[in-house]
Amino acid sequence: MIIDKLIDLILERQNPTVMGLDPRMEYVPADIVKDAMDRYGQTAIAVKYALLAYNKGIIDAICDIVPAVKPQMAFYEQFGAEGVDAYIQTVAYAKEKGLVVIGDVKRSDIASTAEAYSDGHIGRVDVLGVEQSFYQTDFITVNPYLGSDSVEPFLKNCEKYNTGLFLLVKTSNKGSGDFQDLLVDGRHIYEIVGKRVAEWGAGLVGKHGYSSIGAVVGATHPSVAAKLRKQLPNTFFLVPGYGAQGGSAADIAASFDKNGLGAIVNNSRGIIAAYKTEKYAGMNYAEAARAAALAMKDELMACRQ
Amino acid sequence: MIIDKLIDLILERQNPTVMGLDPRMEYVPADIVKDAMDRYGQTAIAVKYALLAYNKGIIDAICDIVPAVKPQMAFYEQFGAEGVDAYIQTVAYAKEKGLVVIGDVKRSDIASTAEAYSDGHIGRVDVLGVEQSFYQTDFITVNPYLGSDSVEPFLKNCEKYNTGLFLLVKTSNKGSGDFQDLLVDGRHIYEIVGKRVAEWGAGLVGKHGYSSIGAVVGATHPSVAAKLRKQLPNTFFLVPGYGAQGGSAADIAASFDKNGLGAIVNNSRGIIAAYKTEKYAGMNYAEAARAAALAMKDELMACRQ
Repeated sequence: MIIDKLIDLILERQNPTVMGLDPRMEYVPADIVKDAMDRYGQTAIAVKYALLAYNKGIIDAICDIVPAVKPQMAFYEQFGAEGVDAYIQTVAYAKEKGLVVIGDVKRSDIASTAEAYSDGHIGRVDVLGVEQSFYQTDFITVNPYLGSDSVEPFLKNCEKYNTGLFLLVKTSNKGSGDFQDLLVDGRHIYEIVGKRVAEWGAGLVGKHGYSSIGAVVGATHPSVAAKLRKQLPNTFFLVPGYGAQGGSAADIAASFDKNGLGAIVNNSRGIIAAYKTEKYAGMNYAEAARAAALAMKDELMACRQ
Repeated sequence: MIIDKLIDLILERQNPTVMGLDPRMEYVPADIVKDAMDRYGQTAIAVKYALLAYNKGIIDAICDIVPAVKPQMAFYEQFGAEGVDAYIQTVAYAKEKGLVVIGDVKRSDIASTAEAYSDGHIGRVDVLGVEQSFYQTDFITVNPYLGSDSVEPFLKNCEKYNTGLFLLVKTSNKGSGDFQDLLVDGRHIYEIVGKRVAEWGAGLVGKHGYSSIGAVVGATHPSVAAKLRKQLPNTFFLVPGYGAQGGSAADIAASFDKNGLGAIVNNSRGIIAAYKTEKYAGMNYAEAARAAALAMKDELMACRQ
């Protein structure tokens, strides 16, 4: 089961980190940008070339110490079809290097449409008689606001193709309170959604006791994470909000179970743009990413004990 | 304002229909598929070629009688970068033909990421020093589950680039009840979200009294639509669920105001695949789409009176 593969890698590398691949052009080193523009000018193809070169350098630098990467599709999709191609090639490269890939796409739609997203991202699509898998992500993130029938086509492919989901339960942003924190008969919406996530994932629990159907629970709400950790003993958490968004290693502790498992913590710019900070000055971007990933691993492992 | 352009077209054509461009390969006529495969084999490029030829034929057939089209991105995105290119070219062609285009993408993310989606779909993106607009949709659909700060980057571009949104308030599917219908202090979540949509759109109300920030309200819940129509007098509704999903013309009436405005009703397969039904047997797909669009216009205009 895909969740077992993820947890096995976390255990093997003793590192519950997922590296967010959310590349902004201002993170990409000047020599890569110059090379891309010399070849392709001020075009989307040059952007694709630059993003891919940058991503590959970072993936090469961390692929033996980090278990998973999470490309954020928005940062690729914004550049049109060439951008989407950069996303697809990034996913393929990360998988080639043995990493688990979580596509952060936050898709949602009614069932007949959700099926198309599901087939594309975590299943297979019929291309005029030939089955193809275009995105090939191991997991994707899904927004549950449309309810159970909208999630069903994603669950179906998780079962069929051994892929997984992280459903938004309590997001890391401040505005998450607007709707997710509303109280219904004494229970928050995020608790109600969380309970449904556990039900949806009940049939896909692996050998470590966690399901391939997980939940997004922001690091910025440690007391909520602690409560959800208790309520959802078989639900693995994808934890955004560490670092740049304000979540500390201590805030993360609440998301782990007593064995130090149960969560994988995302860090994007803190790793991929580490070379721009004073702490890693003088290193190239790939060396700095590796050093920052190792520092984060130490912080997380310490807070789990 | 973009909402004024949409309403002016609805008035001019006396037709509150938006045609959903959700092409499935089984809708595409055999001769188009054969031509695509003869040229490009069983490839994503052949799919792109077939979807585009099919979409252009339908757009040509209805572009003087229907005010707007709504391509559903999932049906393109599932075919990877080539599919996304088909989406982009479909949008461009529809705009060339004078139609308002609503990109049904249902995106959502935390602010820094939502900004990338917003810039890509309804704003502009910096391509190594050149501003470009890749998707060029007039409106997009957005999922509000992440709260106000996640919607902000979309609102910002609506103001800056004269584009608009339709936020999911009450979706047409059965499972929409799971979370959207929950009661918080006597008010349904969809009412609470609806109220926020009205607040977000307050600064973008046009000459007809409606805002460029609209709401998705399913035709399958007529009593909910009637209630929301009263609560949200300045919020324009995008109404899915008519036809194949079970909503009738009578169910639609609740979404219109006393002047017969306030809503645009989506129909996808009922128009784009009309040639496959007994009623339009013998017509080619484009003729059948036009005939079905005219029949729907008559039904909607009758129910508004």
